This record gives sequence, C-alpha cells and structure tokens, in this order.
Amino acid sequence: MNTVHRTAHALRAQLFAVRSVPIADELALDEVYARALLGSVAEPGDGLLGRALDAVGAVTTAGLLLDAVSPAEFVDRLARAGGAIDEREATSGLERWMPRLDHAAFARSLDQAARVGARLIIPSDAAWPAGVDELGVHAPLGLWVRGRTGALDGTSASISLVGARAATGYGEHVTMEASAGLVDRGFTIVSGGAYGIDGMAHRAALASEGTTVAFLAGGVDRFYPMGHEMLLSRIVETGAVVSELPCGAAPTKWRFLQRNRLIAASSEGTVVLEAGFRSGSLNTAGHAAALGRPLGAVPGPVTSPASAGCHRLFREYDAVCVTDAEQMAELVGGVARRALGDGGSQHRSGRAHDPAADSGTGRDRPIDRGAGTARSPEAVRVLDALSMRSPRELADIARRCGMAPATVMGVLGGLEAVALARRHPFGWLRAKRG
Amino acid sequence: MNTVHRTAHALRAQLFAVRSVPIADELALDEVYARALLGSVAEPGDGLLGRALDAVGAVTTAGLLLDAVSPAEFVDRLARAGGAIDEREATSGLERWMPRLDHAAFARSLDQAARVGARLIIPSDAAWPAGVDELGVHAPLGLWVRGRTGALDGTSASISLVGARAATGYGEHVTMEASAGLVDRGFTIVSGGAYGIDGMAHRAALASEGTTVAFLAGGVDRFYPMGHEMLLSRIVETGAVVSELPCGAAPTKWRFLQRNRLIAASSEGTVVLEAGFRSGSLNTAGHAAALGRPLGAVPGPVTSPASAGCHRLFREYDAVCVTDAEQMAELVGGVARRALGDGGSQHRSGRAHDPAADSGTGRDRPIDRGAGTARSPEAVRVLDALSMRSPRELADIARRCGMAPATVMGVLGGLEAVALARRHPFGWLRAKRG
Repeated sequence: MNTVHRTAHALRAQLFAVRSVPIADELALDEVYARALLGSVAEPGDGLLGRALDAVGAVTTAGLLLDAVSPAEFVDRLARAGGAIDEREATSGLERWMPRLDHAAFARSLDQAARVGARLIIPSDAAWPAGVDELGVHAPLGLWVRGRTGALDGTSASISLVGARAATGYGEHVTMEASAGLVDRGFTIVSGGAYGIDGMAHRAALASEGTTVAFLAGGVDRFYPMGHEMLLSRIVETGAVVSELPCGAAPTKWRFLQRNRLIAASSEGTVVLEAGFRSGSLNTAGHAAALGRPLGAVPGPVTSPASAGCHRLFREYDAVCVTDAEQMAELVGGVARRALGDGGSQHRSGRAHDPAADSGTGRDRPIDRGAGTARSPEAVRVLDALSMRSPRELADIARRCGMAPATVMGVLGGLEAVALARRHPFGWLRAKRG
Repeated sequence: MNTVHRTAHALRAQLFAVRSVPIADELALDEVYARALLGSVAEPGDGLLGRALDAVGAVTTAGLLLDAVSPAEFVDRLARAGGAIDEREATSGLERWMPRLDHAAFARSLDQAARVGARLIIPSDAAWPAGVDELGVHAPLGLWVRGRTGALDGTSASISLVGARAATGYGEHVTMEASAGLVDRGFTIVSGGAYGIDGMAHRAALASEGTTVAFLAGGVDRFYPMGHEMLLSRIVETGAVVSELPCGAAPTKWRFLQRNRLIAASSEGTVVLEAGFRSGSLNTAGHAAALGRPLGAVPGPVTSPASAGCHRLFREYDAVCVTDAEQMAELVGGVARRALGDGGSQHRSGRAHDPAADSGTGRDRPIDRGAGTARSPEAVRVLDALSMRSPRELADIARRCGMAPATVMGVLGGLEAVALARRHPFGWLRAKRG
C-alpha cells in the first residue's frame, strides 16, 4: 500500500462519524469513501465523472484518481468495462479533478461534517431520494444531510415551492397559504432556503408543523444566506438541510444552478409562486420540465414584474396554472396515482391527494358552455319568456321563446319541479328567487 | 297570388330601405326578404332552420312557411332536395315558427330599422363576416348593422376582447392598454357592448381612433344596456353595432348566449381579460374554443375573484396566457399567417401582426436553462472562480472552478473579449460591472 492509499485508509475511518446508517462491511465503507472523495474533487453534475461511475463504479473511479493514472490508463480501464470515454475527455477530466485531490482538505471537511452533525447518504441508502437518479450521469454522488434523513426518503409526497428572492406581499401571501395547505394534505415542502418565496415556503411549513427540506448550493456546515441561519437551524430540527457539496464548499453561481436540479429532481412536482422575467427559479422550473415532472406556476397581475416569470412559464413551458394548495396537490397527485399503476409504492397513493375525492366541492365541475348554469338551453329560453308578475298562457310563452308548445309544456313541468316556475289560474309565472 | 304572398310582396318593397348594397335583381331581393322574414320567426342559432336552409335555401324555406304547409309537406319538400328531417322535427319547428309569422309586426320591425338607419347584410354580401359561416347550421340568417358595414368585412384583422361586467380597476386598466395597443397594430376590436370589460374595450378603441364592433343580444334599434347608449352611438359613427335579431327584439338570456357565439365566430381570436368563476364571458371563450379559434386569457391575482374565470380557462380550455397587446396580436397573428398559406386573403397577412418581426425585442428569447443569462455553463463557473480584487493564476482558477486549465484559458479569452475578465501581471481578475 502506497502513501496515498495509506492516507485514504485513515480517512475512511473518519467516515464512520458521518454515516447515517451503520456501515456493514468494508465494501460499503469503500463505496461511501469513494463517493465522498469524488464529491470533493468534482463540481456538481460532472457528466464525465457520471459516465465513469456508470462504467466502473465509484470505488474503481476513485482508485484510478488515487493511483494518479494517466489519461491513457483511465481510458483503457473504462473501455475494458464498456465505458466509451476518449483520451481528450480523460485528459480534461483528470486535469480538473487531480488538482483538487487534497487529503488534508478532505479530512478537514469530514471533521467539519462530524462537528455540525452532517451525515452522508448514498444511492444504496433507504433514505436516498430515488427521484434524483433520473438525472442520470448528472445525478449527485452523495447527499450531505443535516437533520432527519427520513425527510428525503419519499414516504411522504413531496412538492417544491420555489420563487423569486424579490417577492411581493402578494407572492408571500400566496406562498404561505399554499405551503400550509400542502402540509395539511401530507406533503413535504422542498425549497432552496433563499429569501423571499423559498423562505416563506419553509416558514409556513414549519408553522404548520410539517416537514420541509432545504437544498443548499454550498456545504451544509455554513448556512446561506446568513439571514436565514435561524430558519435553517429550525428546519434541521424536524426536516433536513441538504447539499451534494462537502462541508466547507462555498456557494457559487454554478452551484446554485446545479442545486436547482436537485430541488426539481428530488420532489414529485415543482410550483413557481412568483418569479421575475429572468428569475433563477425559472431554471428550477426548466429542470422539472426537462425531467418530465409536473410543473405549475401561480399567476399574478400582469402589471407586476414579480409575476412575469410565472406567466412566461405558462407560455413557454406549458406550465399548469395553479391558484391554491388544492390545485397544487392535484398537479402532483395525478402523477402519484400514475406511479402506482406503474408499480409505484403503496404509501404514495395513500398519502398523495386524490382529486377525484373533491368532485363534491363544486369547483371542479367543467365549464358549462350553456350559461355558467346547469340549465338546459330550452330551460333558459322558457325562463326568459316567463314573467314574475303577469301569468302567461302556454301559447304565449311558446311564441315568446320560439319553441313548440309541447316542448314548452315539458320544460315548464321540469322548471316547476325545481321551483323555478309555478302555475297560476291564468297561466304560468316565473318563481321569485330565494 | 294569395293574400299572404301579396302582403309579402308589399313587405319586400320596404326592404330597399334597409339594404346596405343595391339589390340587383328580383332574385336577390327574394333572398334578402326570406332571410329577414325567417330571422323574425326563429330564435338565433335554430339548427333545424339551418338544416332546412342547407337543403332548400332560404327562399324556399320561407315560401313553405308562407304557404303554411303541413309537417308532412315540409318533410317531403326537404327530402326531395336531400334534406333529412323527420316529421317530429318538422312538427316541432313549424309549431315554434308559425305563431310568430306576423306580417304587421314584421313591417313595423322593418320600419323601425329604416328609422334608425339599420341595414341588413346577408352571406352573399361583401361585408359579411366570413367567420360566422363556420357556425354551420347555427350560422346567423342575416346581420342587422348600424354604422359602417365595412367594419365587419375582414379587411382588418379582428380580435374579441371580452370579460366580466363586474370588472376591477386592474381588469379595466389591462383592457384599456390591450385595446389601444391592438388598435395601434391595425386590429378591429370586437366585443359585446356590456358594462365592465366590454365597455372599456370599445372605449379605448374609440379613444385610439380605431374600429370597434359591438354585437347586441337584442335589436339594434334599442341600445342595451341603457347606460351605454352614448357609447354605442359613438361606435355607430366609425364602427358598427350589430345583431342577428330584428329591430324590436328584446335581449333575453338565450339571446345573450347566442350573441356570444357571434363575437367568437366573427373575430379571428378571443381574449378574456377578467372573468369571475361563472362569468358569461366564459361562454364566449367556449364558443371560440369549439370553433378552434385562438383563445387567450389574461392572468390576475389568485386572490381576486374577478380573475378566477381566466385561470379556469388556462386549466380547462388550455387558453394561452397573454399579458399585453403584443402577445394578443401574436395569438391571432399566427392564425392570420396560416390562413394565408391556405389561400387566405392578402390583406390579412399585411395587417396581421408578424411575431417574427419582434425577435429583436429580447422578450421573445426562450428561457435560458443555464442561468437566465446568455453565458455558457463554463463561463459561469470561471467567473465564479475569479476575484475582482485578487488576481488569480490559471492553475488556481482551474482548481477553484474544477475545470481543466486549457478549458479555463479558452473561457478566459472569451470573457476578456466581452470585458467580463481582464489580465493582470499576477493572473486574472474579474472585471468590475459597468
């Protein structure tokens, strides 16, 4: 065993402190170690690294880096496992990963994780959010979690509520109602921990004693933005604060954009509540759309720049217009039910909201092309021809409404049955309201 | 010639006064007379009458009524021309039409039309709005027009702006901007003359010296609602007030609903600007959708009941979200362009708005999935790694952004070219904004 590997062996011991589940054997520890290490050298969503993992797995890939192989060796090892990576790619990959292979820094990062109680989960863990695997070669290598790893495991239906930092009172109000209403329906609220809409989504979920998950763009040891340190600390108590970046990593613009893909991929659907024309939350929406996840947006005044991004989503992304928690639950519920049909887990169908159960509310009836009323066209015409004061004879009514007397008689019988018309010694009257 | 037909002959003479175009021969006068007469006995959209016209034409159909034929004879005459109407239907039709065959009332209606300057146009007239023929057997028999019949003839692109009577200040503001903006783009504004959104659409069109058309649910001799008598009188001066009902006919609920189909069918597209959950303007929207015409709706606050109908149209009718005149013009312009390809008239393409011409405004660029910025992912990462104060060497930048040095160098060159990064004796700096 050379020096590099001896160091690696020492580091692996540290990993016991940051595991959420016991490490059963040396092999599992290898996997955890490899993913933690690779996560410390690559930027989020590194597709080349993802392809290497697909070909030879995390342990072998990490081993190649620890052995400081040449690009040609790297290509050769992957090719033997069926991985098609050319030498130019391998050169580029190794050139970006190797300078970051720093065991001292890695050890400090693990120490820091242990200090703040952050734990690392990997795809084989029960708590792993299965949805992120749909990111393919851009899937996260592992997730650092502060709080309850069970908040991520998909036992509750989850929905992302995201939006602009520069939210208006209107946007915050709608977000508060939506988040609370979704918590009432058993949803976990996922967001990005930012000021504005994100913060309100988390706060309202906490206030309703719901579960909420915040994905950060930097390490979970340092809460960002600083003004949300209290809020994120409260989320840790009952939910989870999550990042794919190791402790000590600073948030960068690139990492914010990659963080957005995790918000979209880890939840069953995404709703944008308020967003300016170029808001970053449109990026999250774009990820949801690209993943084929339900995407909703809340409309607002066309005179409000803070809603321009939502309206853009209707036009450019075919986002569903959602106006309350009910409709947001339905947006995601439809998918949960489909997932069941495809062999999805039972608990999803149990928790997800069933829109069919709401048909009695009256708000879900389709638009009545006849009148915005349940009356038939004939009934409308006969009612038009009746007076509330002057009784009218059948022939007169028939002439007034331009319908055959026999037809009118039938309709009058129906209207009488529902107390809209009444008989009179000299003909028929329209009944008074109420 | 029996008495009925002698009376009819006398009535036809009156028709000269209410024709917008000279009547070339006796045959054309017959057609005008027949349609005017049938329009006085049937309610709007009478499908059985429409089928009779399809089979034997208006003149023969009117003749059958004037001859007071039996249901069996009516069926027989239609069957000989290939019309499939059964005796039960014929009985019902004759029972509803015959009681209204009143020559004295018809003569009074024609007198009244002449008095107010209303003119009758029929499908063979150049001014006839071709779109209404798509209503098939429910198409109007003729249209009574006060004002300029040319306002209807399709030489200008037309759009319907409709909405709730109970409009809010927000809805009226958006309607005013939309109507004025569409007039500026050469559109004729079609609406229903009602209080609220309709009235504002007409008013703003007039204020912008545009053409506007109001469809009424009763005869054009009596303006409804009464509070809009001045407004409708002003519309008559430069545009048109139109109804398929003869002068003297009162507006009824049925006629309002049927009037809505004319608003939808006579214009190239319909936009609902504000509508409650059960607003009658949803009925107009339903007609537009049924006809396959472009349907747009303007979003509003989800907390405003006056926008609930618009949001419903997004969800239930797949209406397009439109937030300004530009987008409304585009909604309809796309169709005008298609119509040209199908052999549509040249002037339409000339007047209709071409969205391709706007690509330079910057608002039509698709959402950038990368960042809401035109920068490449690499550029974002390299910029993240630069400092505005401390120059950094290439290797340091490459390590910070996790990219190969050669790649970083290429990106830095690009960033330097657009003045986002600059060289320094000790490395690279991020350029200051502005």
